[in-house]
Parts: sequence; structure tokens; C-alpha cells
Amino acid sequence: MPKKIFPLDSSKKFEDQELVGHNRWHPEIPPVATVKPGESFRVDCREWFDGAIVNDDSADDILNAPLMTVHKLSGPFAVTGARPGDLLIVDILDVGPIPQEDSGPLAGQGWGYTGIFAKNNGGGFLVDQFPDAYKAIWDFTGQIATSRHVPGVSFTGLIHPGLMGTAPSAALLAKWNKREGDLIKTNPNRVPPLALPPEPQFAVLGSLAASEFDRVAGEAARTAPPRENGGNQDIKNMSKGTRIFYPVFVDGANLSLGDLHFSQGDGEITFCGAIEMGGFIDLRVDLLKGGMDTYGVSENAIFMPGNVDPRYSEWLAFSGTSVTLDGEQRYLDSHLSYQRACLHAIDYLVKFGYSPEQAYIILGAAPIEGRLSGVVDIPNSCSTVYIPTAIFDFDVRPSAAGPHQIDPGIGAPRSNNK
Amino acid sequence: MPKKIFPLDSSKKFEDQELVGHNRWHPEIPPVATVKPGESFRVDCREWFDGAIVNDDSADDILNAPLMTVHKLSGPFAVTGARPGDLLIVDILDVGPIPQEDSGPLAGQGWGYTGIFAKNNGGGFLVDQFPDAYKAIWDFTGQIATSRHVPGVSFTGLIHPGLMGTAPSAALLAKWNKREGDLIKTNPNRVPPLALPPEPQFAVLGSLAASEFDRVAGEAARTAPPRENGGNQDIKNMSKGTRIFYPVFVDGANLSLGDLHFSQGDGEITFCGAIEMGGFIDLRVDLLKGGMDTYGVSENAIFMPGNVDPRYSEWLAFSGTSVTLDGEQRYLDSHLSYQRACLHAIDYLVKFGYSPEQAYIILGAAPIEGRLSGVVDIPNSCSTVYIPTAIFDFDVRPSAAGPHQIDPGIGAPRSNNK
Amino acid sequence: MPKKIFPLDSSKKFEDQELVGHNRWHPEIPPVATVKPGESFRVDCREWFDGAIVNDDSADDILNAPLMTVHKLSGPFAVTGARPGDLLIVDILDVGPIPQEDSGPLAGQGWGYTGIFAKNNGGGFLVDQFPDAYKAIWDFTGQIATSRHVPGVSFTGLIHPGLMGTAPSAALLAKWNKREGDLIKTNPNRVPPLALPPEPQFAVLGSLAASEFDRVAGEAARTAPPRENGGNQDIKNMSKGTRIFYPVFVDGANLSLGDLHFSQGDGEITFCGAIEMGGFIDLRVDLLKGGMDTYGVSENAIFMPGNVDPRYSEWLAFSGTSVTLDGEQRYLDSHLSYQRACLHAIDYLVKFGYSPEQAYIILGAAPIEGRLSGVVDIPNSCSTVYIPTAIFDFDVRPSAAGPHQIDPGIGAPRSNNK
Amino acid sequence: MPKKIFPLDSSKKFEDQELVGHNRWHPEIPPVATVKPGESFRVDCREWFDGAIVNDDSADDILNAPLMTVHKLSGPFAVTGARPGDLLIVDILDVGPIPQEDSGPLAGQGWGYTGIFAKNNGGGFLVDQFPDAYKAIWDFTGQIATSRHVPGVSFTGLIHPGLMGTAPSAALLAKWNKREGDLIKTNPNRVPPLALPPEPQFAVLGSLAASEFDRVAGEAARTAPPRENGGNQDIKNMSKGTRIFYPVFVDGANLSLGDLHFSQGDGEITFCGAIEMGGFIDLRVDLLKGGMDTYGVSENAIFMPGNVDPRYSEWLAFSGTSVTLDGEQRYLDSHLSYQRACLHAIDYLVKFGYSPEQAYIILGAAPIEGRLSGVVDIPNSCSTVYIPTAIFDFDVRPSAAGPHQIDPGIGAPRSNNK
Repeated sequence: MPKKIFPLDSSKKFEDQELVGHNRWHPEIPPVATVKPGESFRVDCREWFDGAIVNDDSADDILNAPLMTVHKLSGPFAVTGARPGDLLIVDILDVGPIPQEDSGPLAGQGWGYTGIFAKNNGGGFLVDQFPDAYKAIWDFTGQIATSRHVPGVSFTGLIHPGLMGTAPSAALLAKWNKREGDLIKTNPNRVPPLALPPEPQFAVLGSLAASEFDRVAGEAARTAPPRENGGNQDIKNMSKGTRIFYPVFVDGANLSLGDLHFSQGDGEITFCGAIEMGGFIDLRVDLLKGGMDTYGVSENAIFMPGNVDPRYSEWLAFSGTSVTLDGEQRYLDSHLSYQRACLHAIDYLVKFGYSPEQAYIILGAAPIEGRLSGVVDIPNSCSTVYIPTAIFDFDVRPSAAGPHQIDPGIGAPRSNNK
Repeated sequence: MPKKIFPLDSSKKFEDQELVGHNRWHPEIPPVATVKPGESFRVDCREWFDGAIVNDDSADDILNAPLMTVHKLSGPFAVTGARPGDLLIVDILDVGPIPQEDSGPLAGQGWGYTGIFAKNNGGGFLVDQFPDAYKAIWDFTGQIATSRHVPGVSFTGLIHPGLMGTAPSAALLAKWNKREGDLIKTNPNRVPPLALPPEPQFAVLGSLAASEFDRVAGEAARTAPPRENGGNQDIKNMSKGTRIFYPVFVDGANLSLGDLHFSQGDGEITFCGAIEMGGFIDLRVDLLKGGMDTYGVSENAIFMPGNVDPRYSEWLAFSGTSVTLDGEQRYLDSHLSYQRACLHAIDYLVKFGYSPEQAYIILGAAPIEGRLSGVVDIPNSCSTVYIPTAIFDFDVRPSAAGPHQIDPGIGAPRSNNK
Repeated sequence: MPKKIFPLDSSKKFEDQELVGHNRWHPEIPPVATVKPGESFRVDCREWFDGAIVNDDSADDILNAPLMTVHKLSGPFAVTGARPGDLLIVDILDVGPIPQEDSGPLAGQGWGYTGIFAKNNGGGFLVDQFPDAYKAIWDFTGQIATSRHVPGVSFTGLIHPGLMGTAPSAALLAKWNKREGDLIKTNPNRVPPLALPPEPQFAVLGSLAASEFDRVAGEAARTAPPRENGGNQDIKNMSKGTRIFYPVFVDGANLSLGDLHFSQGDGEITFCGAIEMGGFIDLRVDLLKGGMDTYGVSENAIFMPGNVDPRYSEWLAFSGTSVTLDGEQRYLDSHLSYQRACLHAIDYLVKFGYSPEQAYIILGAAPIEGRLSGVVDIPNSCSTVYIPTAIFDFDVRPSAAGPHQIDPGIGAPRSNNK
Repeated sequence: MPKKIFPLDSSKKFEDQELVGHNRWHPEIPPVATVKPGESFRVDCREWFDGAIVNDDSADDILNAPLMTVHKLSGPFAVTGARPGDLLIVDILDVGPIPQEDSGPLAGQGWGYTGIFAKNNGGGFLVDQFPDAYKAIWDFTGQIATSRHVPGVSFTGLIHPGLMGTAPSAALLAKWNKREGDLIKTNPNRVPPLALPPEPQFAVLGSLAASEFDRVAGEAARTAPPRENGGNQDIKNMSKGTRIFYPVFVDGANLSLGDLHFSQGDGEITFCGAIEMGGFIDLRVDLLKGGMDTYGVSENAIFMPGNVDPRYSEWLAFSGTSVTLDGEQRYLDSHLSYQRACLHAIDYLVKFGYSPEQAYIILGAAPIEGRLSGVVDIPNSCSTVYIPTAIFDFDVRPSAAGPHQIDPGIGAPRSNNK
């Protein structure tokens, strides 16, 4: 185990730890630690809601999930010698749930959760079809996840951090606030909202001086979206063994991370679709001096996934096109075509006895693949979603015998949108 | 070799063959042959432009590619006993270039082509960045493709039919024409167009009686987009060993297919991004009676990919978000985020000495993976494109040594948009 | 299709073809054609018994299989500029059954065979347990093999040449004859024999001058074993996309090949365990001048397997140790431990209703993996055999429900050893 | 983390722990704990020499490695309800080095070792070529191993227990002692020995009553070889996610395990070829009542490997035949042919600047594949060894440029056999 530079005590809240992380992006949030190029280190991570979601059979906590408090991030970690224009190399050496803690009230202590968020609290990819809140608790057995709320499936988790990134410069932050503000202005009262503006309430800004707090909290960007600095990319393949190259925008790079996922399908479609948990991550950092210009990497992270993905060899795939459920033809809309592909997959799984929300949760949490298969064949884009058949403990393939009927059990707990 | 039920003579035009296929979708196009459930058969396929694109170093043919003539499809093949409501099972037993013909003027005779279409002739995924026409010729050596127009890359083709589907019913066809017509009306003079309306000129309708030709040609749907019947899905994973389940809309199902690809990246991004060719395909069909309702599969094809994909283990990946190149924030637009991911990949490859269009062509033709990684993190969706590093004959990974400089050679021939 | 330099007419015997190959190794067998480094070419191959094994339900042909007539090889092919000390690079561009011939009396015309050889005719890996002759006919559907003699299994073939190699020099040939002769002398009457000495009867030596025939036939080595020149290695992974480096022992290298297999398990354990067939192979050759010394490759072929193996992800594995069935402890004998692993696998499959010989045939023909797992733990070596579970159309895993019972059907035809 | 039922304190010797394991097989060794079917639990494991091998640059510890003291096993663990005739299902939920201990004097604390054993102390697979002792220390970085003694290679470990098995019955133990004793008698003074007889000295027998110690120690089997109970199988694929089925020979089954490996090549060819370490393993057990007879599994363990192997896609392979280095032809000897394949691989790697022992160590420790490719082609068996090219940080493929020359660094420490 490399030296732990950001410890978390599972019995204390995120803000009460010895070292306090943050939940907003801002260049002035002070680093909690400094590491050298070539150095390896361990970081503890708190689950994104800091314990607000509990291991029970009610979805009330998901209904009322405090979105203004997220994401609880570990960091920033300064890297000696990093300067704007460099690429920060980050190797994910290892990542997992909270070590040595197999049970307890915190996600990551032997369990995690997925949620379908209610329309009034952010919603998800299929919010029109699923306006209410649902929850599923997943138990970890080694690298395998199973859920009492979703019987008949088990899969090997591709554990990864949902969120990792470097600090924005002041200029980059201003650009974010401008463009996202402009979008919000186009429909400021939309439910769910188009974007999330800076929000001083519930801001956590590490060891920032109190005198600066209000100003910085008023400017700091929310952590929900991925942006030029990486951020909340939710790329399921960014698992153990992955090497990532982040653009550096401030001296020291100021790397932060969190939002660990035990498993996730491409898209993390139920919004909180990944299996959320706290845990640990072992990283090694290095620098490619001047790499942003050398490699033309200035507005995005690039990465090389690790080589220990769970191996599946048989998939059942569903395609979708960019026609709305109401039959309206849209022009090359891959977002819509992926929604339609996912809805087709849900329609299929329901025939086996799953409730629609159980099927939706499977697509969010299991290692499904979502692909942009055709993006040029006007007017329809074609997206496809691939489900590994081996995750089901019954035969999920179409056959003359018709669909096997599962016992859906207690189902996924629900709380009505209001 | 199973019995060939649709032969093509490489020395003759598509319309001059013994059996004539079609290039429009319509329920009244008569089947060219009838097969029984459980039967295997071979079908020859003509490349989609029927020889208009030639093996030379000019892109003039791409500039003037006759889009009204496509796709040259083999079929329809009626299946005994198929009724609306059934699922038609199609197994792709084998698929490849034109057998025993290793050289000649037709794509599929040992070579194929990719093209970037000019803005005035349809354009492609990145039409704003690439308004002109370009071409690349690819040579086949066994299952490997290389190009004199794109040096330094070679890859194992995942050969597949870009287009396969069942005939629409009259009602389904009417629905297509209505919804696509409505879209066109929103901006009828757009260049490139929003969709392609029925077009009697250059229609090929098999053995349809002359008396019906004009009416049917005026109603028949163009073949460019994928739709409820499958169609031009351009799914690169639909290769040898794949089993597909198509909804049946008319008696006999009336399966048609064509547009063979030697290789393609997810999205087929340059429009004619796949390596186009003619060739053969061996199929076996069967029926799942009443399967559309039993399995909830009524508006899409579902499929199980084969198990002989080329195996790659190391990938270089680029992410993109839904912010335009001009800096405008869009709301969860996965089409845009994939465009940005592809542009980032192009920016990177250019640093190694490729021209932008060479890089674009690589992304269209090589077995790249395009994934919908994050679709819920407002306002940014996150799409990712994965390039197998082994397709380059140099080290394409970022390193302190900086990018290796290739010799771009003669480059991809260009013809200016006009 | 590259230029065919060695054609075979399926209606004629091997010796009656326009170009006649050979079935013995000798440096003086004249090349049938000459190719240049960098050149691609197609070669037809005859199945190893030249049609003696037929597509019926009797094993009499296996019982009496004419071992003195094998292997019917295509070649030799001289490579311009090749000199002793070079490495000959051979790329397998493509390989498959007889093209365009889907039915007929020759293995490779849509079907192939496996055989368990009788003890008096060579035997196999488990000859003591299986002294009689058995046969199974396999039908090809695309790349899939199934057998009426072995129900309940189907698998994707990893098509490969069982035999390929360069001509020996006179000195190397003498060395072979000496060492194999010495072995035979230790037990000259053993049944089955320890090795196969030169055998003028049934020798086929291409276009060798009649005046030299008797001398050369009396010296020429049999083709059964693999040796320094490659030869009958029966390596199932040497499939499409493979690059092999052979030592060159004579001017021109004189490459020969044959014994195509539609599929094979590691070890080809039933002797004729692979699915035997005739067909075609497309090759490209090149030279690494002086490569034998440069790379220390002088007594063996080295190779890089292709990247299109069938993908399986779940395996059922059996281990064996070097204790005989009679309970005698042998010292680190991996041959024995693999026999025991295979016998354990057979014992297991028999519980599902297979006859022992059906189970044995499955291990010979399906893409099983045989591994040398432990070779140092005195006195027991540990070998393991891995069966992909997906090749069975029932659940072959151990479970509380007990083994599913298949209908073994007509079984594998048998002819008693005599 | 499941409940730990066998803890080890890294600061204390194996015999001084709260619970003491054992290093011999005997039915009377009392269980240290009892678990129920369906239960999960964690077990700590000590490295096989209990700290005798240290992290330095001398091979003296390997030269004098105390073979009579091994293997230090955790257990036995009794399973409630297990009876002879059952199959014990063991799921490997997780396995890794000593958690939370990244540095220290014990292998497993962030590092491990491989050794080539001297001829007078057991030797290895290639003892005639490598009679002296060598050592290499490997550092763990996440799941990656590298060594200061073997530069230029790094690989993802496939972590697994080398040894796991159920207790033998008295009858089975007697059978082992008889057959191994008979073998020893054939050449009792051989160096290295043919097998290892019971050895009371250094026997550790858990909590066995002192009054029984001498008798049991005189009967108890050594742990070096794999046998009917599983035991020291050294199967590199028995990693996380694997399910194993062990025959049960005594009431309670009495499962024991140890000898964790961070990585290993097929065969573990240098004897201590795997990267040895202590660590933890999480298991879940269950029973298949009467399974030995139901499934014909009575003299061996069967298993289903997990699905998280490191993914490699390009391999360089070497074949070997059963001809000795002195040119003597042996009859179908797969042990010999694998030795020759490994020697060919060593000859090749030496051309890149490695010392022979460095090359040998790579084959022992890296995830190489060893296959029984041909076992029937008299008189030569054909074995093959596959090295993933991606483990080298240079291009290890043959090319016209000739082999890249590495800096072998300080090399692997050596101590002369005496």
C-alpha cells in the first residue's frame, strides 16, 4: 500500500475529517497535499452524498438526495513542478471499496447503491418514462455485485472513479460559468434544469481562508458535468491499470477525484446509475512537460484503459434510431437514439418478469456497452446497447420456448416524484 | 458453400444481371427468391455505388458520387411461412469480398474505398471541418487492410453488411414518409439536406411490373437511414457469427441486404467511412413465430454479435463533451460530444504527421470503438472514442520523446466542394 | 484472391493433378513453383488421406486408414534468394475449406472428419482406453462445426494448417533418420510403433526424376512428426493472421504445407483429432537474411498467432497429475498428466450421457486449451484441459440439479481393432 | 471484507501466531475453524518460506532455502456437513498481497520474489542448464510487477493461490506414501530427488496434540506435489472469480491453502518461478452433496477460472519437440518438448541482451502460456510457450533491424550450487 495522503475516517462526516476536501471547482482551493512526479500515493474517497443514502428498502433518501452537496472530492493534490501547458499523467494503480470494512452505514462498506432520480431532483436519461425515485442496494462479494432489489443478475464490477480532474484556471472557470449560464438563461425554470449554476449553499472548499469563502463559493463551478479538466466523466473503462493524461491549467495541476463506482454501464443512464460507493484509490503521477501543445491535448483528457476488464463473450444487443416515442423524426440525434435503444432493451427485459425500473437499473449498473454505431445516415443516427448474457442466472436469449419468468422479488423501492 | 440464390456477374451493371435487386424500400417489390426456415444460402452483393468509385488517385468520383442510385441491394428474399408479428432470425454464416477475384475495377475485387463526402453531396459527421471530398483506396491482404493514401496503419477487418432489413408494410412506409417529410419541411433547402425524400429517378425496383413502377417509385423509401426494419444500421459488430432478429411486417418477411464493409469504425463517421466493397454473404434464416409480441421487439432489430472480432488489448481513448467548437454549451448532446471526441483524436494524430483528412479517414475505417460514456451529467454528455494502438506501425502513445513523425505520402486525394 | 500457384482439381487424385506435390521430406524434391520475397499466393491443399475417408456412418475407413500415404503436401515452393541461415517469414493471410464447393465426396467440401485410430493402426493419445477405431463427420456452416455423431456441441473453428515447414538439408535429414532409427531399435515391434522409418511404398516425390526415385524414397523422412523445420506441429493457434519464422536449411527454403484442420483442440488427442479437410491457404513470404543466428532460431519455428481466435469467456477445467491409472507414481511426466486430465474430462462428460468416445472426440476437435500448469512440483506434474462451456447447447457446469442428460443419438461409428 | 477466520501478524513467525496452521497433509490435523456452506470468510496466508527469503541482492537465501519447512498453510477449515463423497465448492472472491502493508521484510509487503533453485536444493525445470541458485525481487505497483533484477519487463499479475486442497483420508494418505516411496526406491540417492518422503523435522501440525505429533509427523505427506486433493497445483488461472470443486475425503472436508503468487507463467518453471508472497484471500464455500459420484470427480479438482485475466492480444510463441539437447529422440515426451520450447525462448531473449537466467526468470514469472500443442505425432510431441509481447518495454518481435539491446543492469543475483 502506498503512503496514504488523504485519509477518511468512516465514522465522521466529510467536513469533520482531519483533512477536508471540496465539492466545487475553483483554482483557489488550496492543495491538501503535494506529491512529486513519479510518486505513488493512496487517497481515501467518500461516496458522493457523504452517507445520505442508506442501506434500506425505501427510496425516500433518493427522492430527497441533496444534490447541492455533491461531489465530495478528495484533494486537491498539487504536483511539484506542474505548470500550465503540461500534461499530468495519472496512473490508476488500484481502486476498491473501503478496505477492511465489510459492513456499516456508509456505501463502500461492503455495499453500494444505485438510484433513479425523480424528475424534480434532476431526473435521469429516461426521465419522461421514469419520473419517480427508485433505489437499489447492491452487495459486494469480492468483485461481484448482486442486489436484493434486482434478482437474477450478478456481474463482475469494473471499479473506477467517476470523477477526476485538474483545477481550472480562473479564465477557464469564467468560460464555464459564462457558457453554462447562457444555456440556463434559455429556459431558466426548466425541470429538470438545463445546468447547475454556482451555488454557495453547501459549498465545501477545503482549507480556503474564511475571508475568501463567500467570493469563491459564488464563483466555483459545480462538479456534475465533465469539462476540459476531465471532471465527472463517468467513463466506466477508467479502471485499474488506466493511464490518463490531463491538461494542466494552474501551477501544481491540483488534481482532485472522487465518486467511486463499483460498476457502471456506458452512460450511467439512471443518473445515479453506477453503483456508488466510497473507497480507496492508489495513484501514481508524472508530468509530460509542455505536453498540451506537443500532443494537441488542450480541451480534454485522453487515456489508455487498463487490461483487466471483466471478460464477456456473448452479448445481446439492441439498436435505436433518432425517432421520438411520439413518432417525430429528429435529425441525427445520437442522444435520442441511445435512449430508444435503452427503451427497447427495457421492453425486452420486462418480458422476462422484471419491472421496467428493475430493467432500467440493470442497464445503469451492469457492464453494458453503449455504442455510437451510425452517425451519418440521415436522418437517423443508430445507437446500440450491448448486454452481456452471462450476467443473468437464466437464459436471456430469444428462443422458441419464450422468455423464462423470473420472480421479481420485492422490486426496487419507489418514492413518488412531487 | 451454400447454394447461391442471388448471383452477380462482376462484368455487368447491377441492372443488367440475371436477377435484379433494388435500391428503395417498398412492400410491393417482388421477391427474387424464396427460402425455407432453416435453410442456408449464398447471396452476392454489389458495392453500394455499383462501380462508380474507382481505384485511382482522384477524388472526383467521390465528389460526384450519385447518391440517388444507392444502395444497390440484393433481394428481397421471401421466407416461407413468415407473417407479420414474427421475428425473422438471420444468422450471418460467412461474409467476405468477391471470391476468387483479387483484382479488377469493382470494389470488392481485392480492394475497397472510403470517402469523405463533400458538403454539397451529403457531407459527413464533421462536415463543417471537412467540406471537401476526399478518397482513400484500401488494399486487402487476407483479412488485413492497408492504404497507399493513409500510410502507417493496417488493421484486421471486421467484415459486415452495412445494410440488412425486412420490407416495410404499406402502413410503416407511410409513417416513414410522413415523419421524414415533416422533418424536411422544417428546412427544405438545407445543405446537406435533413433527410432524403422518395426519388423516382434512378429507382431500381427489381421485377416490379412496369405498370406499377411510377407509383411505387414515387412512394418507396430511400435506403440511407436505419429504421424499424433494420436497414442501413452500419453496425460494425454485425459480422460473421452474428444472429439478428428482425421484425416481420409483410408476408414472407422479404429480406434485403447489401452495402458490405471490409471494416468500419463505430459511427462510420466520414459518411462513406467504412471500407466499401462488393462480395458475398452466407445466411441462414429461421422464424420465431409471434416473436414481436413475445419479446417486445417491434420497432427495431436485436442481435447477438459473433465471437470472432479482431482482438486488440491496448487502446488510446479521447473524450468529448457537448460544447461546440465555438464554445457554446449544448444540453446533453451525445452526437456533439462524439464529434468533439473525434476532433480531439484528429488533433492528436495530426501531431504525428497525418493530414487532418487522413486522421479522419482512419477514424472512419479502422475498428475504433465509439461509446456513450456519460449521458446524464448536465449539461455535458461525455462520448469517447477508442483507437487500438496496434493498428499503427509506430508507437502512437504519448511519451516524453514526443510524437514520431510519419511520412504522409501522397495523402488522400481531394476534390473541392462546389 | 492472390494468384494460385498450386491448384488441385477435386475430381482427381493427388497424384493425377497438373502439379504433383509430395508426402515425404527430402532436400532433392524439386520445387513446383518459385515465389519472390514479399509475394502473396494461393495454394490448394488436399486432405491428408486424399479422399480415403468418406462421409458415412462406418469407421471401417478409419480402421484401415493408409498411414503410409500421408501427408499429401502442397509444394515445395522455392523462395528467391533464400539461403541456409535465413529465417523464412510466412504470413497466413487466409485459410479455409475448398472454396465454392459445399458438397461432395472430399473432406473440405462442406464437411470434415475426425477419427480415433485403432491401436494396430497408430492409436492415439489414450490408446489403452480406446483401442478401437471410431469416426465422426462434422458439417461446416460458415465457421461453425457440428456433427451428427456428436450431438449437443457446436463451435467456431480456428482453421489452420496442421503441417507446414521448410525442406531439410541432407545433413539434417540424416540426423532425423539416425535418431528416429535409434529409437525404433529400442523396441522395433512395438504396437503402435515408436516412430515411422522411411518408407518407399506409397512415396510421392513430386517431379523428382525417375532415376532418383528409389534412392530418395528410401531416405526421405515421413511427415508425421514435427521437427526442426516445423512440419506437422498441429498447433491450433497457427490460424489466419499468424506470422511464422522458419529456419532455412536449403537454397530456396522449399516450403511445403498441408493437413488443413477446420478446428482442433490442443494436442489433437485422438490422433486424427482435428477436423480434417482439404481447402485453400493464402500465404505471403519474406526473408530475414541471416535471421537464424541473429535471433537464435535454428532448431524450431517461432510464430506470432493471429488476432481472430473465437472468443470464449467461460471454461470448465480439469487437472491431471503424473500418476498412472494403475496408481504408479511417475516423475514429472507432463504427457501422462495431460492424459489424466483428459481422462478426467471424459469421465465428467460421460455423466451427461455421452459415450466415452464421443467425449474423447469432443476434446480432440473442439477449441479446448491444454496447459502445462505445473512442471516442477516433484514428483507430480500438473496439466490442465479447459473446455469452453459455450460449445454445449446445454448447461455443462456442475450444479445441485445434477447433469443434464443428452440424447447421444447414433453415436460415433466404431470398427474393432484387429 | 468478510470476517477473518485465520489472521496472521506480520511481525511474528508462522508458529508463533494466535492460530497455527500446518505444513504437511494429514487427516488428523485439527481444523482451526469451522465454516458453514454459503459462508464467506477471509484468510491470511504466509509466504511459503515464512520470511527466509529477503529483499536484497544476494541469492544465498535461495541457495539455502529450507525446503523441509514448506509450505506454510492456513487451515484446515472444516465445513459443516461435508462428508466423503461430496464436492466442496470454493469460490475465490478476492486475493492479494498483505493489505495495508506496503513495505517490510516479509514477501507480500509490497514485494515478492522468484528463485531458481540450485541443483542440490531441488533444482527446477531446466536444472541441467541452470544448476546454480538465482533470485529476483519483484516490486508491486498496484497489480503491476517489475524487478530491479530483470529490467525491461512489467506485467499485470494474475494473483492466485498456488496451493489449496482438502485433507486426505487415511487411506488416501497411505496410497500417496506407498506410490511416492516406490518411486524414490528406484533411485534413492538421485540429486535432485525423485520425490519427498514424510519428514518429521520442521513439521508443523497446527493444534495437534503433542502425544500424537511424532506419529502423525512421520506419516504426513509433504506439500510439494499436487495430488487427488488438489494441493500444490500451481495453476496460474486459479485467480479471483474462480470456482473450484474439490473432492471431500474426510468429514468436514478440511480445506487448507497457501503459497500465494502475485504472478506466474504456466509451469512455474524455475521451481520457485511464481512471484512468491504472503497476503489474504477471501473465500466462499458450499457443498455439492454426493457430487464426486454424480459428476465423476474423485481423483482431481475441477474448476472454472474467473473472468478478469489480464488481456493480452499479441504473443510471440516458441515450439519444442521431444528431442534432447544431446540429440536423442524420445517418444512423445511433452515434458521434454516443453523444456525445449522454453530453452528456445531463452535462446531468443538472450539475443536482446538478457542473461540466460534473466530470460528463464521471465518465463517463470510472467503470464506466459504453455500449451500441449501436439501429443500424438510419433515420435515427437510438440509443446509451445507464448510470451505476451506487451510485457516488454521494447519491441521484442523479430525484424530486419535485429534485436534491440537492453541494459541487463545488475542482473539476477547468483549463488553457486555446492
